[in-house]
Amino acid sequence: MRIAIDAMGGDNAPRTTVEGALLAAREWSDVQIILVGDEAQIAAFMPTGSVPANVTVHHASDVIAADDEPVRAVRRKKDASMVVAGRLIREGAADAMISAGNTGALMTTGLLIVGRIDGIERPALAPMLPTMDDSGVLALDLGAYMDASPHNLLQYAVMGSIYRNKVHGLQKPRVGLLNVGTEAMKGNELTKQAYPLLEQAPIHFIGNVEARDVLQGACDVLVCDGFVGNILLKSMEGTAGTIFSVLKTEFTRSFFSKLAAAVLKPGLVAFKKKMDYNEHGAAPLLGIEGLVLKSHGSSDANAIKNAVRQARIALASRLVEAISTETGRKRDGKE
Amino acid sequence: MRIAIDAMGGDNAPRTTVEGALLAAREWSDVQIILVGDEAQIAAFMPTGSVPANVTVHHASDVIAADDEPVRAVRRKKDASMVVAGRLIREGAADAMISAGNTGALMTTGLLIVGRIDGIERPALAPMLPTMDDSGVLALDLGAYMDASPHNLLQYAVMGSIYRNKVHGLQKPRVGLLNVGTEAMKGNELTKQAYPLLEQAPIHFIGNVEARDVLQGACDVLVCDGFVGNILLKSMEGTAGTIFSVLKTEFTRSFFSKLAAAVLKPGLVAFKKKMDYNEHGAAPLLGIEGLVLKSHGSSDANAIKNAVRQARIALASRLVEAISTETGRKRDGKE
Repeated sequence: MRIAIDAMGGDNAPRTTVEGALLAAREWSDVQIILVGDEAQIAAFMPTGSVPANVTVHHASDVIAADDEPVRAVRRKKDASMVVAGRLIREGAADAMISAGNTGALMTTGLLIVGRIDGIERPALAPMLPTMDDSGVLALDLGAYMDASPHNLLQYAVMGSIYRNKVHGLQKPRVGLLNVGTEAMKGNELTKQAYPLLEQAPIHFIGNVEARDVLQGACDVLVCDGFVGNILLKSMEGTAGTIFSVLKTEFTRSFFSKLAAAVLKPGLVAFKKKMDYNEHGAAPLLGIEGLVLKSHGSSDANAIKNAVRQARIALASRLVEAISTETGRKRDGKE
Repeated sequence: MRIAIDAMGGDNAPRTTVEGALLAAREWSDVQIILVGDEAQIAAFMPTGSVPANVTVHHASDVIAADDEPVRAVRRKKDASMVVAGRLIREGAADAMISAGNTGALMTTGLLIVGRIDGIERPALAPMLPTMDDSGVLALDLGAYMDASPHNLLQYAVMGSIYRNKVHGLQKPRVGLLNVGTEAMKGNELTKQAYPLLEQAPIHFIGNVEARDVLQGACDVLVCDGFVGNILLKSMEGTAGTIFSVLKTEFTRSFFSKLAAAVLKPGLVAFKKKMDYNEHGAAPLLGIEGLVLKSHGSSDANAIKNAVRQARIALASRLVEAISTETGRKRDGKE
């Protein structure tokens, strides 16, 4: 398995990406890691004389910045590390790529450089959101497309279901449609039209799921358009962040409250960590003719190593081929 | 000021509605309260011989249940307390109505019985959501319409701004558009098209507001369609509810944690109450030719009294007339 890592993407790249790559290469000998980026900068973090044989460097002279306009950056910076990593997949020199860089640019790289799976109208970014039962929920789309058609939601549902089956081993992932009520006819025009499509899809559709039940683990795959998904995620983050900051204030109010806080802290720190969706691995960009994983910008070496673990499982399970087959099957069925 | 109260609406009606009406009538002698509902049931909660002179009962033989289908119920149950209260406004026998009953039916009563303000395409339900600085944010629409047009959002913005000015005395309410980023061109088709309309409206439009900043009091009026507003509200409620239930578990984990919890409890209970949007008064149904206020179904007598307080202020400030004038002005300007 050849996994290209965008060495220059992320807040602390290339230190974290190189260190993560080395950790992964040492752990899994069946993996060939290709670090894509500026040779000199990468070399600075490589241990002299003891680089594992399954790590190579592929030079790329340019970098896409966090605040670059995605489409323009991907089109113009042809030698940017992210774009070059995408090209390695396109040309058959890599099977997967991982980047902690600019999200919009990575989606554009997936779309324009790697290419969509035939029949997929729109790729979807699918991070895992935390749930209280620790199993998590794959939510899609949480990418750059704000509006979606009912048919887009159908494809998100099928791709998400295949991902949870192949990569997480769930036999029958419960797919839910994010909505304002559980009854079938609830919702806006989009969800009302998507509902019957999801009912007929080759998935285990459990119906509408309300926003308040997502955290409780109401489903394994949550389907929504990018706008609503973003509102959901950000309001969960905002509320949790606000409550934790109030707790912090309460905890430091007096001598006794500081003492009390010390008792409660371990449990709450663990809980806070659980609520942090950045802890829940890299997000796959589904619907692309190759495996593309988005790691969080603040990823440390361990997060990069974990993304390699995810890529390994996805490649071994032939995720992309499964999505492609399912889409092809449906397309052929229609014709 | 003549305020009709749907005596039969709410979880604990007519006890709470009658008790609340009595509290309000005793506090404000300039208010004439009309309790609408079953005479016999209302009488059971009236104090013998000491009913304030400014409380009267208007008999209505029927009731709309919490699970009645709204439109059908309003059309068929012509003598339901809620419908009769609406008719009192329509016929000029009351200036305002308050109901803690079926929300959808109240919106339908507003629309079909009381009637829309000329020029308003769609009335909006506008509850106050809590913010950390205690000032709260009026969010609309959080009613029964799931989809909205850019022009609907414009009207929501104008009505919400007038409400906060007239009823809460804000000189220059900050109106924000709920969106996925603060830049002007962010969002879905709806918000992108609404943005320039809001820029040109006679309001203090501060631009896009992200879901995570709502709780921090980023704006005084938050504009969104009903679907997205519901997702926002329910994910905030769901997250807060989940965190508080985890805290409860942590607090009872051991002898020491119980001790610690006792120290922290007062501050946290106050905070939890602050986060509960049901504590933040009745929600006006804006865009109706009369004042219609929705109290929460679980309202106690005090909440009903507070709704009367709200109605008094809105009537004194001539809220409905102000919305009507603004809408008329714009309509005339267009023609």
